[in-house]
Amino acid sequence: MALLSRNLTVLLQQNLRLVTPGCRYVSQTATKTESEFEYDAPSMKTPIPGPRSKNVGAINFFCNYEESRGNYLVDADGNRMLDLYTQISSVPLGYNHPALMKVLSSPSNLSAFINRPALGILPPENFPEKLTESLLSNKERGSNSPSAEETSSCMINQSPGCPDLSILSFMGAFHGRTMGCLATTHSKIIHKLDIPSFDWPIAPFPRLKYPLEEFVQENLQEEARCLEEKGKPVAGIVIEPIQAEGGDNHASADFFIKLRNIARKHGCAFHVDEVQTGGGATGKFWAHEHWGTNDPADIGYRIFNTWMGDPSKNLFLSEVLNVIRRENLLEEVTRSGKTLLHGLYELQGTFCAVDARDDVTRDNLLLKLRDKGKQEHTEKPNTHTRFSVFPHTPFLSSGVLLGGCGEKSIRFRPALIFKDYHAHLFLNIFNDVLSDHK
Amino acid sequence: MALLSRNLTVLLQQNLRLVTPGCRYVSQTATKTESEFEYDAPSMKTPIPGPRSKNVGAINFFCNYEESRGNYLVDADGNRMLDLYTQISSVPLGYNHPALMKVLSSPSNLSAFINRPALGILPPENFPEKLTESLLSNKERGSNSPSAEETSSCMINQSPGCPDLSILSFMGAFHGRTMGCLATTHSKIIHKLDIPSFDWPIAPFPRLKYPLEEFVQENLQEEARCLEEKGKPVAGIVIEPIQAEGGDNHASADFFIKLRNIARKHGCAFHVDEVQTGGGATGKFWAHEHWGTNDPADIGYRIFNTWMGDPSKNLFLSEVLNVIRRENLLEEVTRSGKTLLHGLYELQGTFCAVDARDDVTRDNLLLKLRDKGKQEHTEKPNTHTRFSVFPHTPFLSSGVLLGGCGEKSIRFRPALIFKDYHAHLFLNIFNDVLSDHK
Repeated sequence: MALLSRNLTVLLQQNLRLVTPGCRYVSQTATKTESEFEYDAPSMKTPIPGPRSKNVGAINFFCNYEESRGNYLVDADGNRMLDLYTQISSVPLGYNHPALMKVLSSPSNLSAFINRPALGILPPENFPEKLTESLLSNKERGSNSPSAEETSSCMINQSPGCPDLSILSFMGAFHGRTMGCLATTHSKIIHKLDIPSFDWPIAPFPRLKYPLEEFVQENLQEEARCLEEKGKPVAGIVIEPIQAEGGDNHASADFFIKLRNIARKHGCAFHVDEVQTGGGATGKFWAHEHWGTNDPADIGYRIFNTWMGDPSKNLFLSEVLNVIRRENLLEEVTRSGKTLLHGLYELQGTFCAVDARDDVTRDNLLLKLRDKGKQEHTEKPNTHTRFSVFPHTPFLSSGVLLGGCGEKSIRFRPALIFKDYHAHLFLNIFNDVLSDHK
Repeated sequence: MALLSRNLTVLLQQNLRLVTPGCRYVSQTATKTESEFEYDAPSMKTPIPGPRSKNVGAINFFCNYEESRGNYLVDADGNRMLDLYTQISSVPLGYNHPALMKVLSSPSNLSAFINRPALGILPPENFPEKLTESLLSNKERGSNSPSAEETSSCMINQSPGCPDLSILSFMGAFHGRTMGCLATTHSKIIHKLDIPSFDWPIAPFPRLKYPLEEFVQENLQEEARCLEEKGKPVAGIVIEPIQAEGGDNHASADFFIKLRNIARKHGCAFHVDEVQTGGGATGKFWAHEHWGTNDPADIGYRIFNTWMGDPSKNLFLSEVLNVIRRENLLEEVTRSGKTLLHGLYELQGTFCAVDARDDVTRDNLLLKLRDKGKQEHTEKPNTHTRFSVFPHTPFLSSGVLLGGCGEKSIRFRPALIFKDYHAHLFLNIFNDVLSDHK
């Protein structure tokens, strides 16, 4: 899937030429799904949003999560869609996985759902001891007690109590929307505009040229440019192994290892944000495992809040990990990712009919793709100007859900139970849509 | 409970004189609990932390949430404690309430727990339409499109794209620990020290003198002092109806109404933080209902994240509200709060034996109270210097859990199912502890 993302980015970021006009991808016969609990295929009954999703405002449509199964999301009108976006990549085993149903129906698990504890002070027995002294340490302060000036100035937000320390982040990065995280986010104007921020340093993220094998020297120089040090002292660096929200931007393992060494040299923390890339979708559990180093990142810890987590989510996490191991899902996604990638290469001819050179073109394409099949639908499209329908609005076409990212990229985020079968199913549908679109 | 908090603050903030030396509070006979599902009384088997909570680090002790019931928290060693702190006030119906067990065991609810949706784009059918146009509006920007300078400057954290707007907050306030919230928090040094912040204006919060009826004029002047305008333009004001973490500090309804008017006059948003005070513990569902105004606060909205909430928590919330109505819990907490308050007044003589004039005295008292009953216990007390055991560390004494807040206050945060019976039970135990302590 890492490859998939990287190469899909290629397809969209290059100004592709029409290699085989009118070429048509013919997928293998789609073998029946192995998951007994899900559906066989998409099934569209109404335009999207359907009559039961009227007045949706900023959202896409209403869903029926009870009826959704595996890779298929069902909406309020009974439309059943193959979901390659999975709630912005947050449903690892698809919908209503039987293993998770079992976790929930076990009487011994009820307490974890009902009695959400203040984990920081009153954890349940055997709760992992993650709050070790080493994690609670603070580099600048060390064991020094704060001075009177520090304690009084911090209460009114002033230095030296609240020091002028910064976090170095990268252009195109997305690390969240609360104010500290937002100061390290630089992916979209809509996230940033009108919100006060910190004057923290920002480095460029490599913009590699594809195919990688044809631009080895250029890409080396590009990565070296992004590693140039600006001389600004920072407390920490934060980076995504693949910039997701910013457009599925990749860099080499060599780039990350060099960056990690720079951080170590200056004694500043090196944080790897795996919110999108972690959990198995790259074929390894963490994307940073692809770097092949034993010391990929630091762990920072100085947080206290009321709950400090939710043990009921840990119950699910534990079962998700069991299913990943039991069903070899890391191997499975590597296989279905290759199928998907191969199919997309085959479709290049069809892709080429579409000028995806800039964001306007991409957005128009995505809108047309979403609106396909609802010609009879007269409702005005979502016209929020402040909240663009991209990147967080999946588009719909013949029952396939996808999301956009970056300026002109399409984001594939299928669940870990996405198989070869589903890849072929998608490729056949995509082929039809692209043929129609020409 | 609002009165309780206010008056309990009195008891601790005043330098009380010994009115009735050796007086002894004798509670009414504690009638048996009405809640069939909980226990009858505390039951202590080991010192706290017990052998199964060894090596607790920063936490207090490990809990057995399966065995906890109603107002009683059971620890890993089987010690059963009357809990007047309820996970920093976050367990409204106590532990393992049967109504919530029923919610969880209903098959039709399973989907809400397993399929956590991206609510902002794909909510379940009938999900309340909270994201209306009016809530999404932005006062400064209005309908003006951003300029090129604004869109480019916001991506690198600079004005005018990221404007120099501020939120006015109050000394002693606690609004959270993420960076934006933390800039409005001024309750404890430990929350603030070493973390970069914003240079935003801070107003004083009234420090009322008690008993209120004896200091009417002084308190009026004190509140007027806190309402003096500094001439700094702000985008919004945020305030707690009762400063909780900061020491259960109260102000009059008149103060809040005047502050709300000032906000309206300047066109800045007025936010009321009810995280601690909301949910019924003051005898009304929201503490700001005590102000008796129809326009207590503004609602601000410009947030998007992956989940935008958790429908499974809404299932519980809905049932919590049912139980509150069905069992008249708002009336019940008003009644048990009065019992508790009356009992504490009766105990004043005993209180007076303790000098609670400053934080050191209070902390020593609380430590001794917690350590009572574990004389045979040789483990060193928690010696983290960076993370004071107060205010978030409840103390233990003969099986009663309480928390501290502010500089020298004790925080009572019982569940909504805390009845007269429990108040008497607590008062009898507290009386014994205070007698011993003299």
